[in-house]
Formats: sequence, structure tokens, C-alpha cells
Amino acid sequence: MNEQRARGDAPSQGRRGRESRRAARLASAASAPAGNLKRRIPTYDLLGEEDLLRIEDAAETILQEIGIEFRNDASALALWRDAGADIDGERVRLPRGLARKLCGTAPREFTQLARNPERNVVMGGDNVIFAPAYGSPFVQDMDEGRRYGSLEDFRNFVRLAYLSPNIHHSGGTVCEPVDIPVSKRHLDMVLAHLTFSDKPLLGGVTGPDRATDCIDMCRIVFGAETTERDCVILGNVNVNSPLVYDGTVTMVMRAYAAANQGVIVTPFILGGAMGPVTNAGAIAQAHAETMAGIAFTQLVRPGAPAVYGNFLSSMALRSGAPTFGTPEPALGSLVVGQLARRLGLPLRCSGAFTTSKATDAQAMNESAMSMLAAIHCGANYILHSAGWLEGGLSMGYEKFMLDADFLGSLAVYLGGLRVDDATLALDAFREVGPGYHFFGCAHTMAHFETAFWDSALSDNLSFEQWRDGGGWDAEMRANAAWRKALADYAPPPIDPATAEALDAFVAKRKESLPDAWY
Amino acid sequence: MNEQRARGDAPSQGRRGRESRRAARLASAASAPAGNLKRRIPTYDLLGEEDLLRIEDAAETILQEIGIEFRNDASALALWRDAGADIDGERVRLPRGLARKLCGTAPREFTQLARNPERNVVMGGDNVIFAPAYGSPFVQDMDEGRRYGSLEDFRNFVRLAYLSPNIHHSGGTVCEPVDIPVSKRHLDMVLAHLTFSDKPLLGGVTGPDRATDCIDMCRIVFGAETTERDCVILGNVNVNSPLVYDGTVTMVMRAYAAANQGVIVTPFILGGAMGPVTNAGAIAQAHAETMAGIAFTQLVRPGAPAVYGNFLSSMALRSGAPTFGTPEPALGSLVVGQLARRLGLPLRCSGAFTTSKATDAQAMNESAMSMLAAIHCGANYILHSAGWLEGGLSMGYEKFMLDADFLGSLAVYLGGLRVDDATLALDAFREVGPGYHFFGCAHTMAHFETAFWDSALSDNLSFEQWRDGGGWDAEMRANAAWRKALADYAPPPIDPATAEALDAFVAKRKESLPDAWY
Repeated sequence: MNEQRARGDAPSQGRRGRESRRAARLASAASAPAGNLKRRIPTYDLLGEEDLLRIEDAAETILQEIGIEFRNDASALALWRDAGADIDGERVRLPRGLARKLCGTAPREFTQLARNPERNVVMGGDNVIFAPAYGSPFVQDMDEGRRYGSLEDFRNFVRLAYLSPNIHHSGGTVCEPVDIPVSKRHLDMVLAHLTFSDKPLLGGVTGPDRATDCIDMCRIVFGAETTERDCVILGNVNVNSPLVYDGTVTMVMRAYAAANQGVIVTPFILGGAMGPVTNAGAIAQAHAETMAGIAFTQLVRPGAPAVYGNFLSSMALRSGAPTFGTPEPALGSLVVGQLARRLGLPLRCSGAFTTSKATDAQAMNESAMSMLAAIHCGANYILHSAGWLEGGLSMGYEKFMLDADFLGSLAVYLGGLRVDDATLALDAFREVGPGYHFFGCAHTMAHFETAFWDSALSDNLSFEQWRDGGGWDAEMRANAAWRKALADYAPPPIDPATAEALDAFVAKRKESLPDAWY
Repeated sequence: MNEQRARGDAPSQGRRGRESRRAARLASAASAPAGNLKRRIPTYDLLGEEDLLRIEDAAETILQEIGIEFRNDASALALWRDAGADIDGERVRLPRGLARKLCGTAPREFTQLARNPERNVVMGGDNVIFAPAYGSPFVQDMDEGRRYGSLEDFRNFVRLAYLSPNIHHSGGTVCEPVDIPVSKRHLDMVLAHLTFSDKPLLGGVTGPDRATDCIDMCRIVFGAETTERDCVILGNVNVNSPLVYDGTVTMVMRAYAAANQGVIVTPFILGGAMGPVTNAGAIAQAHAETMAGIAFTQLVRPGAPAVYGNFLSSMALRSGAPTFGTPEPALGSLVVGQLARRLGLPLRCSGAFTTSKATDAQAMNESAMSMLAAIHCGANYILHSAGWLEGGLSMGYEKFMLDADFLGSLAVYLGGLRVDDATLALDAFREVGPGYHFFGCAHTMAHFETAFWDSALSDNLSFEQWRDGGGWDAEMRANAAWRKALADYAPPPIDPATAEALDAFVAKRKESLPDAWY
């Protein structure tokens, strides 16, 4: 870390004053409304009590009769044995109700600290947090097309998420920086999150030592005492569905939970492949897998923060290819939301899903279908809220901007509809009367500035204005928007000693680690 | 009407046999599942009892204190006077509760007959009906761009709606055929609906004589007795918001209601222009306007079928331009749905709204936001379900196909999620066990064919397959799809005597009508 980077790569001392003024202005412009959103609309509850009980019962049957394999981690098996599970080789069968009981020590709600305290977020309850897409090996934009992601792409998406007022969380692997060895990648990724942004973040999950590195970097930023007491980082782990937790996953979960940091436990189920082809069964399986995982974090450290994760999707039956943004997982999300609330756990859901390769009509149609299910199901943490393309294989610059803009619309939607004297506006009717317009009336003047969501990227002009302005489609406008955002970007301030300590930590760890690509 | 048209413009007798076999095949392939959809998911109820009562109370205050103007129709004023309203010039003030009470004689549910009885639809209850967009002067496609709509465009959209298995209703003015004088346009439009399709339809609303012509044409098809007894046509009328019904509108309403045909009463409110800039007030106004209109149909003929219409949208505050697919009207629709159910009336809502000029990411994002609100609010009849672009000024061929495809996804969504032994699939878990995939298991084999929605237009292929196949975006695929659909189109069979009688009616009416362009 050096000063230049902290000041937006300002090329000369002479520009520093102007740069830092601009940085201050942009830093405040970049601010999301402090922390996360609050949901002021009801959840959309799809199923009734009887159906929910049947799914919960099926999940208990799966845990009791079929069981879950905890592979390659003897310590995990020992924890389960001590908790009263039936251990048969690596197969762990749980007496009915055990997983649910163990989940009871996880907090219903917890705060994740951000480097900038104004950006702390609360997981659980009525809180809603949007985070970028996660994990794609490829990136794409209109100018350079599709290519492997690099560290510079990674930093760009961290910058763009920082700049978006609609994104509350910096996320984790916003794209894979494939130019960095896997063994060192987590260091550069967490360093980028901690320096190019001041929003909360996810840490590495590809191995327990890497998870520990990420937590250690947070100790530098937040202090060891705070890190012991509060959640400052979370790991988002996937179950090796169906019904398997591999040792890498459980050891990573143990690293986070033991340090009192958060674990998001997310089954990874494409119906017909890693789970049954019917929704109810896939949901029962997901519920069993998630409960077992969260129960496991509580065996490691009762009270450690944990999040109930959801990742269901479907399959194209002609080709076997995964599909996203389809109606079945949308319905599934609604049910998963009900199950998570009945367990009393914060819920992670997925957002802007699509299989489209282009930032086109299909992409935003599927994304909207998927996002609205996440909104309606009561999700607290919505991963993959921006950028996702191609079933998660690619992170799109233009897609990111369009998704992030749509999040602004969803924030308004989540705010609900206020009914009071001011909004009922009877005086406006008295003033205007039948047949006249409301443009200039006192009520309109008093309320118009905040009345309607104002999209940064939608074009509402007339056809003629639009055509004469170049006839740009949404993707072209998004292209201009991310280019301008990155050109104007300035990083949030950071204490120079902290920045130096982070740089030193990364340098030292990199020295001691081999270059490995797995 | 001639035989050639009935056989798909087959150019020669020699091709007739083949053509009619193809027609028979396509006619059955074109079938939507008989009639309309059934909703098997709950409505999404946004507001609680107290807020709903406040809005209903505000609507009653508007009707009682401000009143509604019924202009240029002395008969309308007389009906209101006899019903106990306070008449002051053209201003009609209704005692609290009068409009609601009058709405009570409208049927909660009614059937609209289609020329093909398998396509009859039920308005109200749990029924959902998708109809194309309505009223645009322009059409557009990728090849020829944007232009005024013609009768041939009109017929094309009737053909495409007929061919779509996801569209249940032929709609009304699917585009304005501006090459035909307004005074005669209704004849060609209704003729096209009745011959190029066999799905139910909307009739003309630009004048009472024109409405009567449309009803008379239905009498030819359905018989006078059936038309007196059953709903065979509906007129979709807009209130001259705020708080005005012009004489043209009320005379058209009288024509339909007197013939025992349906009226859809739809306020037209862009918040800040034709109503207050705040949602609650705009909804109260809409509720007042709709109740007054439906009450009026019941004064004309108690028991006449009527539909509670909803058309709310917002405004771009920088330009004053209307906006669509934004969060405020989505919330508004949810509340309007609650109000319509409390009145016990079938609900019409609007679907695939957007201001986009292109069939791009913005178009389908806004459309999905708007459509899902219509789905969640419990709408029975969703107008503008396919084709809408540019705030309703343009009907897009490619947009139509993408919207119609999305309707298939929404049909699955409306089907809900079944929980039973077959869908919980415990035997599949017993068969597969942890760590194995479900591709070939007995449960997957038994269920995969019907498990997942299969989009006709989404591309789920890998990037490489997609790129090597030409790298088409959604708009390009939609372009190929509508061209193929129209090339393959064959009209549904019609009794030749009926076709001749319709043609004769149209010819005779055209002779007696002047060419007028208003």
C-alpha cells in the first residue's frame, strides 16, 4: 500500500490538493444511505403451515435417515459425535431436531462492521444488504469483450461497488483475478476490499489458512479485540451438494467460527443434478444441508454469527445446462425465506441471475425475476446483486451498472407505501378539481423532489430526443457510466499506518507461500 | 372475408390440401391451455386494514366533496340524479357509500365467450388472462425500424397473439392501423380479431355507434340470443382523469352495458400530472374514479359485467416525461389489487410497461418489474402483456415475442409449488445418497419432462456454443421467432357463412360511414 494508491493514483504532488478535495467529495457522493436498507414491505409467504411442516419434516428425515457426509475432517466428526450424532464412517446422521436445536445458539441478528463505521450493516431482521456477484472466472465489457478476470478487473469491481449508492457490501470474489496464483489470491482480494473500498466484505474460503489470513488482515484494520468481539468478515461457503461437506469447507467454517466471524452456509443445488428435479424435495434438501452447516458452526463456537444461505436453480431439460432467473427457483426462494424465518436466522439469497451471454433483454428479464424473488422472500443479504452473467461464469461491467441501478428501484420498492394525510393529498384535490392537472399545485411542489425513483440509466426521453441523442440502448449507456465512474474514482481515506501494515502483511505472507494454482 | 384468407392466403388451389393440414396442426399447436390460467399462489397484500380503510375513506371523500364531472351526456346526469346523487351542472357528487353499493350488482366473476369455446375465459376469482398491448400508433421491428402501424401490422399482432400458447385473449387495438380512417377502423380491427384469431376480444371505444358496430359483429358470430345473455365482447374505457368522464366515454359505456356486454373502467393517472404526486392519493383517486364508472354501468343495466381497471404510473421529475416499470406504480398495483378484491370485482391490471425505445435490457427490466406487480396484485385480466415499448407509443414485434415468452414463465410461477410425497422425493434421496448426482435416478426420469419451464427464446447454451452459433442476443432471436411464426401461420377455421356475413356487415357499414380521421 502506498500513498499514491490511497489518493487515486494521483500522478504528481502538484495535483494532490485538487485530488484530495475531489476524493472527499466523491467519497461522500459514493455513500450509500448509512448502512443497509430497512424492509418496510411484508414478506411474500407462499406456503401455508401444513406444507411448511411437511418440508421441515422431510428435512429432518433426510438428516436422520440418509445423513450427511463430513469428509476428510476428523475434527468435524468428533464434534458431531460429542453432540450426539450417529457416526458411520464419514456419514453423520442427526437425531430429529438436533440440527434445529443447535441452530438456536446462532444470533438472530448481528452487525458486520465496516472499515467506515457509517457503512456497518446489520444481518437479519428487516435489514436488506446488496452485494456484488461472486466467483466468475471471466469478465466482459462492450469494448474488450469476454476474457479471464485480472486483479485490475477485481479492483475495478470493488471500485464500482464502492461508488454505487445502492450497494451496501463490497462482496468477496467479485471476479477471479486469474493472473494471481490461487495460493495468494485471497491476499490481494482482501487487500483490495480493505483499501479501494470502506464497505464490509467477505473473505477467502479456498482453505483454512487462507481464511485465517483474511481474518488476520481484518485484525490489522479493526484491532484484535474488536475482531474477537464483533463480526468484521464473513466466509460464504458452499455445501458440496448433495449432502456432503468436504474437509476444505468444514475447516474453513471452523476457522471463521472459531474466530467469532461469520459463516454463510449455502447449498448449491441445480434441481435434477445436485438435488431432486422437483422443487419441494430440493428445498427440503437445502434446508437439511443448511441446518447441518449452521449447527456445525455452533458446535465450533456457540453464538458465532451464521447466515442461512440459499442457492437453488433449475436445468434446461433439452441440454442439461443450468438455467437461472426461471420461475421454479423464484418460487423456491419464497419458501426458503419462510423456512429461514421459522428458524430465526438471517437469510442470504441470490440476486441478478441469468444465463445470458449478452447484456440484453434476456439478461435483465431473468435478473429481475430472480431479484424480485430475493426481495419478496425476505432475504437480508443478497449476493450476486450486480454483474452476474452467463450462469455466473462472467462478470459484466455493463451488467453491473444496470443491476446496480435497478437496486435503487428495489430500495424504493422495499420502502413501501405510506398512507397519511400528506400522501392522501385531499387538499390537492380541493385545489385542483376535476379536469385540471396537478403539475403546479402546492402538493406537487412540496413532494415532487422525493416522489419518484430517478433512474440513472433508464432512458425516458421521447423517441425523437432519444434518436437524436444517438439512439443508445441500455448497454451503451451503462458502458459510458462505468467508464466515467472509474475515471472519477477516488479511494476512501485510510490511516497510513494501517495501510502500511496491510501491505507488509501481504508481502510477508506472499514470501512464505508457494505459487499454487489450486 | 374470402376463403383464401381463411386458409392462410394460400396462393393456389394446388396447395390447399397441404395448407389445411398444416392449418389444423398449427391451430392445435397454437392452443393455449384451454381458456385462462388459474392462480395457485396467494396475492401479495401490501397494506393492512387500517391503511386500506383510510384510502377507501379518502375515495369516498373525493366522491362526496369534490365529485366527478360527467360531461356532454345529459342521459348520464339523469341516471345519476335518479340514483340519488347531487348534481351541480355537470358535477356529480355521490353520497358516501352510494358508488360502492351500486358496484354490488356487478358480477364478481363472469365468462367471456370466445369464437372457439375452448378459449372462453373467466374474469374474476383466481383466473388470470394475458392480453397484448393496446393503443400504440407506432410499430417497430429490427429490420424496418419504427413506423406508423398499418392494418397489416394489426393483423400480424392478432396472428402472433393467436399463435402464442401463453396469450389467452386477442386484446383490442393491438396497434393503431393508421392507414384506415378512424371512422372505419373499428370494423377492420374487430373483423381481424374475429377471423385471424378465435380468442376473445375487446371492441372499439371511440364512439357509441362504433361500439354498437362491434357488438353487432359479435351478434353475427355468437348469435343475438347468446349475445344478450353472455359477455362476448368488452370495451376498455379510460377515465378522463382527474375526475372527469367525457360524454364519448359514458355513451360508449352505455352502449356496452345496455347490450349486457363488459366494460373495463380504467383511470389513466400519471402521478403529478393527472393525479397527486404521492401514491396513496393517486390510488384513492383511482378508486373513486373506478367505483363511479362501474356504478354508472350498473345504473345503465344492473348486473352488466364490469371490470375494475388499474393504470397508474409515475413521472420523470427532470423532464416531466411519463415513466413505466418504476417501483411506485408496482407498489400502487399491489394496493389497487387489495381494493378491487374488497369490492368483489374482477381486476384489470397492466403488464409489460417500459419507456425504452429499444428491445433492450431496460425494456425487459422495466417490463418484468411491472408484470410481476400485476401478477402479485391478483389481476385477472392483464392488458399490455406483450409488445409494449416507448411508454405505449410503439408496439414492438421483437418485444412482443420476448414478453409472450416471459408469460410462459409467469404461468408456471402462478402455478405455485406443490408439496406432496412425489415432489418431496424422499425415495430419490434414498436411491442417490450423498455425493452422487440425480441425473439418471428414477425420480428424475419420472418428473424431468414437466419439471422446469422451458423458454422458447432464452439462450442457456455455453458461451462457446452461443458464440459459434452467431452470438445472437435476445432481440435477434425474437426477430427470427416472429418471422417464422408469421410464415407458418394459418388462421383458425371459421364457418364460411359467418365469414361472409361479417364481410358483408363491414362492407355495408363502410359504405355508410364518411372517412373521418378522429
